[in-house]
Amino acid sequence: MTATIKHSHLIGSHNHPDIKRIRRLRDRAMREQTGQYYVEGLRFVANAFQSQAPVDMLVVCPQQLDHPYAERIIHHYQRVGVPVLEVTPEILNGISAVDDPQGIGAVVRQRWESLTRVTPGDELCWVALQIVRSAGNLGTILRTSEAIGGAGVIVLDEATDPYDPACVRATMGAIFRQRFIRTSIEKFRRWKQRHNYQLIGTSPSATTDYQDVHYHTPTIILMGEERKGLPQSLQALCDTVVQIPMVGESDSLNLAVATGVMLYEVFNQRRKKETSH
Amino acid sequence: MTATIKHSHLIGSHNHPDIKRIRRLRDRAMREQTGQYYVEGLRFVANAFQSQAPVDMLVVCPQQLDHPYAERIIHHYQRVGVPVLEVTPEILNGISAVDDPQGIGAVVRQRWESLTRVTPGDELCWVALQIVRSAGNLGTILRTSEAIGGAGVIVLDEATDPYDPACVRATMGAIFRQRFIRTSIEKFRRWKQRHNYQLIGTSPSATTDYQDVHYHTPTIILMGEERKGLPQSLQALCDTVVQIPMVGESDSLNLAVATGVMLYEVFNQRRKKETSH
Repeated sequence: MTATIKHSHLIGSHNHPDIKRIRRLRDRAMREQTGQYYVEGLRFVANAFQSQAPVDMLVVCPQQLDHPYAERIIHHYQRVGVPVLEVTPEILNGISAVDDPQGIGAVVRQRWESLTRVTPGDELCWVALQIVRSAGNLGTILRTSEAIGGAGVIVLDEATDPYDPACVRATMGAIFRQRFIRTSIEKFRRWKQRHNYQLIGTSPSATTDYQDVHYHTPTIILMGEERKGLPQSLQALCDTVVQIPMVGESDSLNLAVATGVMLYEVFNQRRKKETSH
Repeated sequence: MTATIKHSHLIGSHNHPDIKRIRRLRDRAMREQTGQYYVEGLRFVANAFQSQAPVDMLVVCPQQLDHPYAERIIHHYQRVGVPVLEVTPEILNGISAVDDPQGIGAVVRQRWESLTRVTPGDELCWVALQIVRSAGNLGTILRTSEAIGGAGVIVLDEATDPYDPACVRATMGAIFRQRFIRTSIEKFRRWKQRHNYQLIGTSPSATTDYQDVHYHTPTIILMGEERKGLPQSLQALCDTVVQIPMVGESDSLNLAVATGVMLYEVFNQRRKKETSH
């Protein structure tokens, strides 16, 4: 099957301005400037569609598409006036960061919220992160946060970008449904003082076992950088700093695993509370 | 500081037979043929040294070494007759898969055990894995297994290789201390029938909550492939198949996170049992 696309002309040049712009979305600077990011593959485009993510442009290689659902998605976006670029396989591969872009990609608008507008609601928890070196770890954290009903991430530095292509891929679609806030440590500190959030940090040198804490709703789990962990200045902001026990020669867990263990503890406590009512 | 190495001559050619052999250890075929693998950086070489891993050869670039501990390690291996190759920065970078090899690497012998010699002891648990697509996931699983006191992994297919360089790096040193077994599903099935191991599989479609199972010692946690999960044929071998609950749009967790959540449940149950005695 080859998808049919109405009112479109085939782009076969790497120098087409839209193609050049999309390729440059791999760079953080271009993502910042445009407020956009690029997702690829039918799974991700379908996820964007189902999650009503703000899609600005669709990129399609009709001869590589062989799923009727793709055609439905394309026709939907055409109907609502989203530009659909039809490209050759060479062009699609040229803008793609994966081996098999499956004939479809989308330019999506980033969604950021302001911390000042976030107030405690019925959300289970947030994850606050200082620096995350690995984009894959960040994406995996978002995937786990969605799985346990977490709201999203509060990023406390400029370098960490959830819209990095490697992060987006690792989210497996959670990128469209998790919430994102970027702020400074100082603003975070002041905001935390005004609101009734429980802030829990983690550190291998803490003396409180992570299972000995009662996690209120909403909790914020604050995780430090890979290897370095949470600096003292951030530990000082926390209501409690807990440790995840380890034995043997281990001195740390992978950041995405440690966050997963914390998030499942928060989730499990909530589940037990619900069944005991 | 520049490390001093006795009785050594500087290698400056990429075509030196030892250098060519080490470079080829990136390939699975060469690792199989030689039964060796290559680790790099002071952290890993120091870990190999402390764990008494079977080091066959050391590769050293004296001008890039600036830690007295490195010199102690080098002198130890020289004393016990392990060859120490002294190389130029260009040669070390040429065999390295990381940005900063820190002036030192080691060729280490792989350690595999035979399943038939494994009998239930006082180990807390094993992880059995069918196919693991991501070497980073496999390494992260080994890192978590060490952290909770797990014995190691039982690999049920030929493709999955814990000695892949990306896996080794992700273990953060657990590669030297975890135990490794490779076997077939049929041999695993027969071995499991003879011994008193509890085999627990995971599947999103299982009806038993992973927290509602009492994990005996020793338990084997059986994890399926990324995305695909455990096939029916493997679920059929399990004493129980459990699910890790998820909410929202999530249909799966990252494999290393899911394994981490399972391993911490096994570990937490053991910890509670110990404190209640």
